[in-house]
Amino acid sequence: MNYEEVMNLATRRGFFLRSAESYSSTPAGFWDYGPLGVQFKNRFIEMWRKMLVRRDAMVEIDTAQIMPKNVFVASGHLASFSDPVIECGSCHSIFRADKLIEERTKKNTPEKLDDQAYDMLIQQNRIACPNCNSPLKGTKRFNMMFRVGIGPQNEEAYLRPETCQGIFVDFPYLFKTQRIKLPKGFAQYGKSFRNEIAPRQGILRQREFYQAEIEVLFTPANLDDPRFDEALGRPINIAEGDTEPRRMLASDALKEQVVPSKLIAYYLTLIQSFYEEIGLDPSNIRLRRLTDEEKAFYSSVAYDLEVRTSVGWLELVACNYRSDYDLKRHSEVSGSDFTIDEGGKRVTPHVFELSMGVDRSLYALLENCYKVEEGRTYLSLRAAVAPIQVGIFPLVTKDGLPEAATEIYRSLIKEFDALYDGSGSIGRRYARADEAGVPFCITVDHDTLSTKTVTVRNRDSKSQERVAVSELELMLPKLLR
Amino acid sequence: MNYEEVMNLATRRGFFLRSAESYSSTPAGFWDYGPLGVQFKNRFIEMWRKMLVRRDAMVEIDTAQIMPKNVFVASGHLASFSDPVIECGSCHSIFRADKLIEERTKKNTPEKLDDQAYDMLIQQNRIACPNCNSPLKGTKRFNMMFRVGIGPQNEEAYLRPETCQGIFVDFPYLFKTQRIKLPKGFAQYGKSFRNEIAPRQGILRQREFYQAEIEVLFTPANLDDPRFDEALGRPINIAEGDTEPRRMLASDALKEQVVPSKLIAYYLTLIQSFYEEIGLDPSNIRLRRLTDEEKAFYSSVAYDLEVRTSVGWLELVACNYRSDYDLKRHSEVSGSDFTIDEGGKRVTPHVFELSMGVDRSLYALLENCYKVEEGRTYLSLRAAVAPIQVGIFPLVTKDGLPEAATEIYRSLIKEFDALYDGSGSIGRRYARADEAGVPFCITVDHDTLSTKTVTVRNRDSKSQERVAVSELELMLPKLLR
Repeated sequence: MNYEEVMNLATRRGFFLRSAESYSSTPAGFWDYGPLGVQFKNRFIEMWRKMLVRRDAMVEIDTAQIMPKNVFVASGHLASFSDPVIECGSCHSIFRADKLIEERTKKNTPEKLDDQAYDMLIQQNRIACPNCNSPLKGTKRFNMMFRVGIGPQNEEAYLRPETCQGIFVDFPYLFKTQRIKLPKGFAQYGKSFRNEIAPRQGILRQREFYQAEIEVLFTPANLDDPRFDEALGRPINIAEGDTEPRRMLASDALKEQVVPSKLIAYYLTLIQSFYEEIGLDPSNIRLRRLTDEEKAFYSSVAYDLEVRTSVGWLELVACNYRSDYDLKRHSEVSGSDFTIDEGGKRVTPHVFELSMGVDRSLYALLENCYKVEEGRTYLSLRAAVAPIQVGIFPLVTKDGLPEAATEIYRSLIKEFDALYDGSGSIGRRYARADEAGVPFCITVDHDTLSTKTVTVRNRDSKSQERVAVSELELMLPKLLR
Repeated sequence: MNYEEVMNLATRRGFFLRSAESYSSTPAGFWDYGPLGVQFKNRFIEMWRKMLVRRDAMVEIDTAQIMPKNVFVASGHLASFSDPVIECGSCHSIFRADKLIEERTKKNTPEKLDDQAYDMLIQQNRIACPNCNSPLKGTKRFNMMFRVGIGPQNEEAYLRPETCQGIFVDFPYLFKTQRIKLPKGFAQYGKSFRNEIAPRQGILRQREFYQAEIEVLFTPANLDDPRFDEALGRPINIAEGDTEPRRMLASDALKEQVVPSKLIAYYLTLIQSFYEEIGLDPSNIRLRRLTDEEKAFYSSVAYDLEVRTSVGWLELVACNYRSDYDLKRHSEVSGSDFTIDEGGKRVTPHVFELSMGVDRSLYALLENCYKVEEGRTYLSLRAAVAPIQVGIFPLVTKDGLPEAATEIYRSLIKEFDALYDGSGSIGRRYARADEAGVPFCITVDHDTLSTKTVTVRNRDSKSQERVAVSELELMLPKLLR
């Protein structure tokens, strides 16, 4: 299957929809979650909390999305979070310079050229305005931060381009009030905003999107702390460059120096095992080590967790060793103290981050679970992340079956995300449930009335089992684990 | 207790903190959730989902926060979502005109005067600039929408001032794809944004805040649908004007015509019972019917669900019959079809909404549960909304007790929000847990090693019970219900 097929099912069934699509003029890069999407995302985040945040006793916070100018002076976003654009002097269309050059030359354009270099490439390759064919020149920077003005004084502020800045600026407060010892993970889930120039990759590149970020704060003395030894026997899929990954033990990755420290090895195994646990095939996951050209300037080592999809290897999580850049900068600009005491010395903590794109993780999971077999389409989502856990169907709409099914539905809906579906042939209802990834469907038939039993159908195997109604509430939690 | 005492505990313990407080220049009206606050909010929202959304089989969605200009042309926000401001011509300070007049005259100023009327009142009362004492005139409108510009073309868009507009504009899509029959509830939880002129009420009036909104879509034919009869025997606390409420059965409220229809009675009982269930004293809740002057112009009947606090009756939920205003306007401006078929005729659905302020609901719950008794301070939060469900304490830090306590902690953290606290006297640890509202604390003592039992302490009664370690995992879910 390809992106269009997956998104066709996803929009038809209410996972995702274009934002405000009743307004034809709505700009690109904004998406809404429909009813199935909300439940899918909630389960995904619940698993993220369970497997990473709670298991590692991390500190989760939820900070304002609008932050004052100085935060982004400190973070460097105001100075350098920008893309090169070029405006046609004649028709005033605006293009992203590097992408336009790539399209016309069919060659990769280096990402970090200066504006003059882009102008030169445009001239050399005789690239004219795609709209009106006028000559182009004068590449400029377009900053991707959304500016907002606070109050009648119009104070300069911005929508955050990443959730982690909230963690960094709150660190002194959290350290003081929460009795924290480093190393410690800090987590945040929420919206971030990037004013992309011309987003064309659908749900994979949005101007407003969900992140789930983990920032591990530590000092260099913690890098090989024995508490991270438990990761040594776990596998990780390391790729150096754009290649198939090698699955190796974390201990071997350390020996071969493709991972520089136990702390980093520990969190890389944690994030990879999260994706395996929620249902991605391990052979479709790689942790690609970034080259020096690809890394952010403050990053000393970085890996992208990527998953194999129909659009190529797709980045889901940026794993960055950000050094002490962030806290030092916030200390310099705010004048507040961001250091901690380590053996009598003041030390600025370092950061290793796992910065997860939530929307594209959900897309990747849908695509990886999209199955077409013997003419039926189903989503083989694990029960832990399936938006609807159980469907309840009366076999026919008479003879008291709808009433019996409704009674079961009413008792299950208190504890489970249940769906009642009473219309259409039973085959059509199974097909609809399969497309929504419902792992188990309960059918109420005439025997239910006499024997107090129902059939429970397994989505993946299509096998059916006869079960006493009284056992459902005990059995379902085990099936759904 | 008063607002300052409650917020002192809340900020000291990590429920709430001022956003980006390490930057001294951060503007007012922005708050962050600390670790306890995130878990408290998550449980509150989980209860909202369970008691309202899931119980009523509502459709929950999650839409983009940035919406295009035309959405707010349709909703009326661009034309009229504004407050009167006055700028000092000399020192350029800006004030909210109606509030300034109120402060100086100690009288309530009508909310809906025009700009000239405010100028007149300022002149009549000889009100000068509070900063530099220069004369003031020239009241203007300040629109409270945050504008953002999309892409290099700077397309006009806004941060939503309420989540419900996302529901309205997605209605045609949802109706088409989700096999929906009216009446049906639609729900959304998320951030909304209002650029207040000078927010001075701390966490109770923020520029960026959480809403949990329910929009019930129906046609007038549904207003007295028999499906709403189940509410008739439930109590609601109705107040007409700023008075103590009368607790009456919904059926009596209908008879006395203080509630106009069964549909509205049903949702009013639903929202009131939600607040009672999560732990507000029923005698502190009222549903105040708004006067014609207070209502929005499109609203034919409206109630504010208010709770008694130290700052007076505090509005938590606006319950508005919005008529068909919203969908009609979106249809007019977008050109899309927002009607449904009813017996062969095309009808535009009406809206009844329950628009909940989440942050202030959490504040009200904290204040209502803040107890000082015999010198100890505790939060009597119901287990269903307590941020931490169970604490685990070794009595002393030697003799193998920390190891035994850690083992119990590790097994409980998989299913519960558990806290391990090993430092300080046991009395101090109980005191800390009381302030965090932890309903149950498990203490591991020397008997634990020999008899495999622990004590379980109840926060409210301070009573302790000896329980077998093996029983904890079965017992806790019952205690926490």
